[in-house]
Amino acid sequence: MARDPSTLTGDLARALGDPARVSANATVLEQHAGDFSYHPRRPPDAVVFAESRRDVEVVLRFASERGIPVTPFGAGTSLEGHVIPVRGGIVLDLSRMNRILEVRPADFLARVEPGVTRLQLNRRLEREGLFFSVDPGADASLGGMAATNASGTNTVRYGAMRDNVLGLEVVLADGRVVRTGSLAVKSSAGYNLTALFVGSEGTLGVITEVAVRVRPLPEAVLAARAAFPTLDAAAAVAVGLIASGVPVARVELVDPLTIRAVNRFKGTAYPEAPTLFLEFHGSEAAVAAEAEYAERLAREEGASEFHRETDPKAREKLWEARHHAALAVGATDPRKRQMVTDVCVPISLLPEALRAGREAMAREGVEGAIMGHVGDGNYHAVFMVDPEDPADVARARRVNDAIVDFALAHGGTCTGEHGVGLGKRAYLAREHGDLLELMAAVKRAFDPRGILNPGKVLSEAGEDPLGRPAPLGPTGREP
Amino acid sequence: MARDPSTLTGDLARALGDPARVSANATVLEQHAGDFSYHPRRPPDAVVFAESRRDVEVVLRFASERGIPVTPFGAGTSLEGHVIPVRGGIVLDLSRMNRILEVRPADFLARVEPGVTRLQLNRRLEREGLFFSVDPGADASLGGMAATNASGTNTVRYGAMRDNVLGLEVVLADGRVVRTGSLAVKSSAGYNLTALFVGSEGTLGVITEVAVRVRPLPEAVLAARAAFPTLDAAAAVAVGLIASGVPVARVELVDPLTIRAVNRFKGTAYPEAPTLFLEFHGSEAAVAAEAEYAERLAREEGASEFHRETDPKAREKLWEARHHAALAVGATDPRKRQMVTDVCVPISLLPEALRAGREAMAREGVEGAIMGHVGDGNYHAVFMVDPEDPADVARARRVNDAIVDFALAHGGTCTGEHGVGLGKRAYLAREHGDLLELMAAVKRAFDPRGILNPGKVLSEAGEDPLGRPAPLGPTGREP
Repeated sequence: MARDPSTLTGDLARALGDPARVSANATVLEQHAGDFSYHPRRPPDAVVFAESRRDVEVVLRFASERGIPVTPFGAGTSLEGHVIPVRGGIVLDLSRMNRILEVRPADFLARVEPGVTRLQLNRRLEREGLFFSVDPGADASLGGMAATNASGTNTVRYGAMRDNVLGLEVVLADGRVVRTGSLAVKSSAGYNLTALFVGSEGTLGVITEVAVRVRPLPEAVLAARAAFPTLDAAAAVAVGLIASGVPVARVELVDPLTIRAVNRFKGTAYPEAPTLFLEFHGSEAAVAAEAEYAERLAREEGASEFHRETDPKAREKLWEARHHAALAVGATDPRKRQMVTDVCVPISLLPEALRAGREAMAREGVEGAIMGHVGDGNYHAVFMVDPEDPADVARARRVNDAIVDFALAHGGTCTGEHGVGLGKRAYLAREHGDLLELMAAVKRAFDPRGILNPGKVLSEAGEDPLGRPAPLGPTGREP
Repeated sequence: MARDPSTLTGDLARALGDPARVSANATVLEQHAGDFSYHPRRPPDAVVFAESRRDVEVVLRFASERGIPVTPFGAGTSLEGHVIPVRGGIVLDLSRMNRILEVRPADFLARVEPGVTRLQLNRRLEREGLFFSVDPGADASLGGMAATNASGTNTVRYGAMRDNVLGLEVVLADGRVVRTGSLAVKSSAGYNLTALFVGSEGTLGVITEVAVRVRPLPEAVLAARAAFPTLDAAAAVAVGLIASGVPVARVELVDPLTIRAVNRFKGTAYPEAPTLFLEFHGSEAAVAAEAEYAERLAREEGASEFHRETDPKAREKLWEARHHAALAVGATDPRKRQMVTDVCVPISLLPEALRAGREAMAREGVEGAIMGHVGDGNYHAVFMVDPEDPADVARARRVNDAIVDFALAHGGTCTGEHGVGLGKRAYLAREHGDLLELMAAVKRAFDPRGILNPGKVLSEAGEDPLGRPAPLGPTGREP
């Protein structure tokens, strides 16, 4: 549908009662045209900077009445095109809704607006001796993390967003406000709509408040870095640690390509070998015993070094290296963009899954940096692709396909934490083809006019019903 | 709608190809007329004993074509009337589907049919050094536990069903079969339908397979029992333990009335005082340190004894007492039936919630036994009521109302683990009135003819839209 941007921004400004909350400035539109991924950018017709729940209600009522697409936007760190307004319309930027509404140390919970980022929350919690566990690497917003069911490095110990969100406030497509869940740690009160909104990627409603569990800072924290002769050896140690029941807080695998990129990007000098980054939380005695056990496992698999860090600054530096791995890989070729795989398999199959991935890369001649939350059986291969080169994108997609095929053939999932967005709709159809009809029925029930983040998770009418990505057009962009 | 039972059973037997799987025998019908609760019993027109997923498909196709209600039945241990076929029709008994399909120790998972009970599964897992954590007391079936999002004594450490179900196989109302989730520990693949079916109480589909997380048996287990001068003191210790971050595996509160009933029922001689039953899991050193910390807290609150048990038989006996508490209270007056409250509040409010409950009981002159999973902020008051005496039921309901009102006014939930069933529809409306329309839309999307466990969770058309229980009829039964 044709939308006149000048009319749209004027109408939105009037509805909101404040022109400063609406922009159609070319730079602002371009800032809201894409995310961290290879997916073609597409600017919206207007950006609204919501400052309160009321603004979100106004925008959704406005858009609902006019059938205008609304795409929520948090920190813009998604990896599958979630925030790209593929049908134009309004991007609803929630970054100004960044108040920490309440921290209740005695109840181990916090309530935040959706634009609060995880580092912002953790700075506030630290004073109380608390932390928020979910850590996807990027300094994502809590609203965005809830919307994609994000997880990350210490999900192996503390769970994903799904396990840490107690309740939500959500504005529905027509502007109605609902509250799901409660502040209690468990509930069986009717259908679990909290869990339905978590991971719905902005397609069922716009999250305006998140209540999360927070945790006591551990008495002692011990980080470690171990370098291995082969990726197989490193993976075997991760599997062995989980099998032993050690409550490891983090167990992250990175390959030599990633370490090389990190060394270049961060000026570090880590050995360019398959490496595990580990962390243990607990009493002094417990973390020492656990690290000793891990070192024994690592030495048995031929680890050349097992380096411990307990000093907070040194630990921070170590984890910064891991957190910046994806950025570092991205910086290796600034003309290119990232395609990131995200399979998760039952833990015992992790080494085999990694081998299958590397074989597919070798077969297609594609170089991919490997890193992952291997304690969960979740790993990523990062391919640098030229979005303008269809053959380049297609080659990486074939590797991605093979990696997903292995996971699905072995009880795994195509996405452990990044979500479906645009890029995994075909994989969602392969994994849960029998559920697409139910998911579409849920979407219709929540958003009958289809204005909320159209084209994400589920394909729209007129698109390939199995959600296969459209063939690339002559520009290398999806037509 | 009128259904001729003889035609119905004959038709069902033909559809299933086996008359032995269908019964309209009066005793069998009566066995499937109710649960553990005070809710009026109501026999179905026929009972089908499903022996495979195919039987479930056949029954649902059959019922869907004819618009006949189908109520799934597991172990019959529910506490809110979930399994009562209030509109007659077919009760689908899943207890013969009791095969443990797969145990994968290396992946810490098991796949089971819905009729497998938790004790049956734990007997099988013990050989592998594993256990399944969710423990609602009764030897419930895994299918039923998933359907109500059951939790129990060690949810404080290991989570509820919601946190332990990886995936499901579900037969939909029209007989189609779908599979949700995966065998990976996390996934962001589309809308979380696993979490939607968990806790849907048989109203969205019939679960025919459950994949669950299992855990390594702890190296050491230490159980303890501490008696206190007041319920307030016992509750304060529970709150203090949680606040300290001690990873207690169980922390259960019981009041003197419950202890008296247990002593009578089990022939034990526990002091008839407010009591905490505790359990610690971990290394020998860790559980000893944790128990010592708990004892210090308990002594500070005036505990008269703090009795430790490490011997497996003695521990089992101790927990049997706690697990049989509800049965023991029930046995105090065999002519009466149980009404059980189930609120869950943010942990810091637990002592106040307990006081509010006891005040309401005193006000109404209702005696209630108190027990609960207090580490979660979840407690139960058990009232023995005469279902034939409307005044008796109404009095207990008024106390129940007051207990729920307190919880809802303080960010809690009306049901921590028992679910909504028949008895909490009015409370669900109070807690989530804004969500009822969405829940009803989900129900219509999954079960357009409304054949699946009608009248549960949500009220049906023609019933009070807020789900208030109907006034009692002249027989004391709901008309």
